[in-house]
Amino acid sequence: MAIAGATGYAGQELVRLLARHPEVDLVAAMASSASTGRDLPALRHLWRGTIEPLDVARLTSGLDAVFLALPEDASAELAPTVAESGARVFDLSGAFRLAHDEARGRWYPKTGTLPDGVVYGAPERLNGGLETARIVSCPGCYPTAASLALAPLVRAGLVAGDIVIDAKSGVSGAGKKPTERTHFSECHGNLSAYGVFSHRHAAEIEQEVGCAVTFVPHLVPIDRGILETMYLRVTPGTTDERIAGVYEDAYARAPFVRVTGGELPTIKQVAHTNFCDIGWKLDAGTNRLVIVSAIDNLLKGAAGQAVQLFNLAFGFDERAGLWG
Amino acid sequence: MAIAGATGYAGQELVRLLARHPEVDLVAAMASSASTGRDLPALRHLWRGTIEPLDVARLTSGLDAVFLALPEDASAELAPTVAESGARVFDLSGAFRLAHDEARGRWYPKTGTLPDGVVYGAPERLNGGLETARIVSCPGCYPTAASLALAPLVRAGLVAGDIVIDAKSGVSGAGKKPTERTHFSECHGNLSAYGVFSHRHAAEIEQEVGCAVTFVPHLVPIDRGILETMYLRVTPGTTDERIAGVYEDAYARAPFVRVTGGELPTIKQVAHTNFCDIGWKLDAGTNRLVIVSAIDNLLKGAAGQAVQLFNLAFGFDERAGLWG
Amino acid sequence: MAIAGATGYAGQELVRLLARHPEVDLVAAMASSASTGRDLPALRHLWRGTIEPLDVARLTSGLDAVFLALPEDASAELAPTVAESGARVFDLSGAFRLAHDEARGRWYPKTGTLPDGVVYGAPERLNGGLETARIVSCPGCYPTAASLALAPLVRAGLVAGDIVIDAKSGVSGAGKKPTERTHFSECHGNLSAYGVFSHRHAAEIEQEVGCAVTFVPHLVPIDRGILETMYLRVTPGTTDERIAGVYEDAYARAPFVRVTGGELPTIKQVAHTNFCDIGWKLDAGTNRLVIVSAIDNLLKGAAGQAVQLFNLAFGFDERAGLWG
Amino acid sequence: MAIAGATGYAGQELVRLLARHPEVDLVAAMASSASTGRDLPALRHLWRGTIEPLDVARLTSGLDAVFLALPEDASAELAPTVAESGARVFDLSGAFRLAHDEARGRWYPKTGTLPDGVVYGAPERLNGGLETARIVSCPGCYPTAASLALAPLVRAGLVAGDIVIDAKSGVSGAGKKPTERTHFSECHGNLSAYGVFSHRHAAEIEQEVGCAVTFVPHLVPIDRGILETMYLRVTPGTTDERIAGVYEDAYARAPFVRVTGGELPTIKQVAHTNFCDIGWKLDAGTNRLVIVSAIDNLLKGAAGQAVQLFNLAFGFDERAGLWG
Repeated sequence: MAIAGATGYAGQELVRLLARHPEVDLVAAMASSASTGRDLPALRHLWRGTIEPLDVARLTSGLDAVFLALPEDASAELAPTVAESGARVFDLSGAFRLAHDEARGRWYPKTGTLPDGVVYGAPERLNGGLETARIVSCPGCYPTAASLALAPLVRAGLVAGDIVIDAKSGVSGAGKKPTERTHFSECHGNLSAYGVFSHRHAAEIEQEVGCAVTFVPHLVPIDRGILETMYLRVTPGTTDERIAGVYEDAYARAPFVRVTGGELPTIKQVAHTNFCDIGWKLDAGTNRLVIVSAIDNLLKGAAGQAVQLFNLAFGFDERAGLWG
Repeated sequence: MAIAGATGYAGQELVRLLARHPEVDLVAAMASSASTGRDLPALRHLWRGTIEPLDVARLTSGLDAVFLALPEDASAELAPTVAESGARVFDLSGAFRLAHDEARGRWYPKTGTLPDGVVYGAPERLNGGLETARIVSCPGCYPTAASLALAPLVRAGLVAGDIVIDAKSGVSGAGKKPTERTHFSECHGNLSAYGVFSHRHAAEIEQEVGCAVTFVPHLVPIDRGILETMYLRVTPGTTDERIAGVYEDAYARAPFVRVTGGELPTIKQVAHTNFCDIGWKLDAGTNRLVIVSAIDNLLKGAAGQAVQLFNLAFGFDERAGLWG
Repeated sequence: MAIAGATGYAGQELVRLLARHPEVDLVAAMASSASTGRDLPALRHLWRGTIEPLDVARLTSGLDAVFLALPEDASAELAPTVAESGARVFDLSGAFRLAHDEARGRWYPKTGTLPDGVVYGAPERLNGGLETARIVSCPGCYPTAASLALAPLVRAGLVAGDIVIDAKSGVSGAGKKPTERTHFSECHGNLSAYGVFSHRHAAEIEQEVGCAVTFVPHLVPIDRGILETMYLRVTPGTTDERIAGVYEDAYARAPFVRVTGGELPTIKQVAHTNFCDIGWKLDAGTNRLVIVSAIDNLLKGAAGQAVQLFNLAFGFDERAGLWG
Repeated sequence: MAIAGATGYAGQELVRLLARHPEVDLVAAMASSASTGRDLPALRHLWRGTIEPLDVARLTSGLDAVFLALPEDASAELAPTVAESGARVFDLSGAFRLAHDEARGRWYPKTGTLPDGVVYGAPERLNGGLETARIVSCPGCYPTAASLALAPLVRAGLVAGDIVIDAKSGVSGAGKKPTERTHFSECHGNLSAYGVFSHRHAAEIEQEVGCAVTFVPHLVPIDRGILETMYLRVTPGTTDERIAGVYEDAYARAPFVRVTGGELPTIKQVAHTNFCDIGWKLDAGTNRLVIVSAIDNLLKGAAGQAVQLFNLAFGFDERAGLWG
């Protein structure tokens, strides 16, 4: 078991989760950055290694599993090679998320053709399907919160008309590299919308939900967590009970989805956990439905979900390393 | 000139704005709370008075103008009496905002019949109309940001279909009284939606915009400021230029509305000012329009707009006391 | 095993830590507040119970251990009764922290005489001593961070002259009850000193460190964590190596103290953990020493340390339930 | 009147303050950065210019006054040239703050010999003295808050023994350039000490206060503001009244210093103002004194104080442009 890209925010969470995972022996944590040779001070009690330089030979030397938390172009190049060596690859980048070449070419132009054996890893929609996966493409953060809330309703035929997704994310979602827009003094006391009609997660959401959406992400001055508020009309006659039933059918055996009904979820409920909480309010007179979902962007939206997929792929308890 | 309700967040801003206003002599700042007899430490350089107990006799003793920043039931009772004395009343509560008795009865049940001489004070939609006002009802914070963005488009016939308003507010909007949901440890690092299908500002927005909306407010961990993201479809063929033209027509002479085009506004641009900034993105292929507006909830959303209305009502420069 | 006071911030952490503790069967979580009958939404995956009303009969019905996270006067009354029943009591209040009656009478006037069998539970200074404890008094949050940093140096005779402790705490340290000073709008963007020469933790620090200190706590706009900066002069000739040696001797077998040398600790390193990190800078020319220590106030400063003491008292691995 | 360095945080405040200043005609705002050619969106209502490239010819073409908010090496080179042209220079960098060559060589090695006509501009300690100044060196942010609190007591002979200054600053004090330590995700929920025994403001404080100090700055997750907590022993017999008297003598005619006695100041009281608030607590039994001072680092700690000095140097009302 090795991690490539261990010093970013998602990468550090991977080190933490895998170092304490009962079934895992973390043999190497690699990074291409200047931080090689150093350890991770906050994790010293769990992991006594130091960050190594990215080493393809080692990643292809007979490991069972390799996690990639790299930029998409690096992943696009490295993942097939690692998979060829027999390791199962869990890729946290966007390189392999879009199934259609045209969409992938538009939103991830550096990633080329999709290799064989890629599975988009939405744990709650897979019904198995990871057995033969050579590369598990881990879902994006915004798409995870949106798809878990919307896909069951769309599949059940309850959605009529436009879907609006107003998404709010903590700043760690923008990565570890300092930039003007993630500078503390710019974010503190501030709120902003970005990527309107131009964020590539919209294409991923549409692929997973199965219909068009209007998706606008916002940057909010918190460290971690995503809250998404979704607006749509349901087909006439849809009741709260029907909606509850659809979610119940979808998630009765999903340990990391908590359906909260009319109690709308908040970020604090899910921060530092791998849960996705989903609640809603229906205005029966007008058939307007508002759904709110919340996740920790670094866990259910990245490293936690990757470990959940690893557990499923290797037949471990889905919750191993993620419960507590 | 006197203020009743001078110790809440909007009330303190009123003291600050009026104490430095070149045309104003602030003779009394009153409150019903335990803070009477104290001064306002942060404002000592501008105002050397102390907070007095609420005194109706004094408020009706021949003042030119009285600002009420009180709970709606207190305003509903007090405003007509003060207006009767000849003072023009600028009321910051919701008591007089809804024109229709049915709506007012539902959302503000303690406020009774609307007295004569009430004008809803949207400075940018009034075209005069304040001359004969005896009670100027100052708009709510969320409705201000929503209506300035939406009303011109609706009037111009550019809106087709549902309007969604996803609003985010700083915590000062919830007032000065400590509660569990405004406790620091509950808000920090957190985000939540509230008042879905049950917030009375929705009725005020619908009155001002002239059509139905879906309105969901959110509490975000900043002190002051509101950002609203609005979603709608425009009539086919609507262009960016047309939208810009509609706003230009509406706000060419409005000193406190800044139309920012494709540069979407942020809270920081408007915090501590009386501006409302409005920007948008149009997806021409699908006619989907996303509009973002931002205000400081305590200024353009409360005390600043009240002073702006006072300036207009008394024929002063609209910007007096508000520019700098 | 039961908890009395399970709905405050420290109490909820206790529920979380004990619900997942491998050696614990949590039979009851009680509170005197209005929240009885409800569950703890964020902890549903770990603990499926509901909060019960405080029930002395049950707390004295043959349990092995009882955790009290109650106001000090409630603890002072309840703890001896519970201890009498044979349960070992882990008390998180200040009721039993001060050994001398005079000091206790001054700072905790409602707590009466110290019962038999009380042990002040500083895990790193105990050298056993919990075997016969009937009531383990868990240290205060500020004293924990201060004493771990200062006590070894004082004992080694390295301190010459005054000790200044400038302490900064997150707002959860002020508890769950909404107040004006913990209202979000008052804390956000703000900093303040409080309790100068009048905070009872100063007495506890002096008891544990063994000499007088000047202690000033500050409220900072973060949710959790304490950082303390300590200023003193060391005896001439004291070197960095000597200081490192003293800490090494004190904490070589203390799993939850991490001595970081010249790398000064930060809150983020310890948040959501039971660690106390300690670093320092010595100005050899002037013998001035600055020490910085950091803890999570709700874990090492409250619930985590209580569980650590429980582990020691019952002979479990000191880290059980606290590592990960 | 021109500004060089108009796009940093202090520079933008200068543009705002000078654009609205009743006696000032701001003819140019320059920057060496990539932002030339752009305007300052938040200030469009006050200033309609665009940022120009740094232009020495223009800065030396007969202006009355030039404000420099540049890195110290740029200031060290540019200020004498501009002063030579007859303009009075208000320099916000550290280039000219330290009077002694040795100290300056150590802490500001790129700045060379001190030119003639430099005055360290502490408005409250000057007693005139700006008439002949050609270059006014504006005090540093930390030294402003420390010296205003300490200098009067030291001069009055009330200080016995060591002075400790524990300073906490908002992140805007670290400037506008994104770095790892000012990245939002690193600062949020975090606190850290830095520059222990190695911050150059310590030398400036010692120069201004007249004795040695131990000074440790901390980075706190707020945008703007500095709070400093100072610890010392007073000479035996010193009373609260004596301390109040010393401050009264020092600041009776200082409009921007507010002595708050036993009510300790907070950041919120001074944010967005040019005030320095000073309060204290004396423990008469032990002669220990704790003083707290607070300023807005960008105003009294930078741009506001520079404008205050400009007012004094040109004989305007000291408060012009700064009151309101």
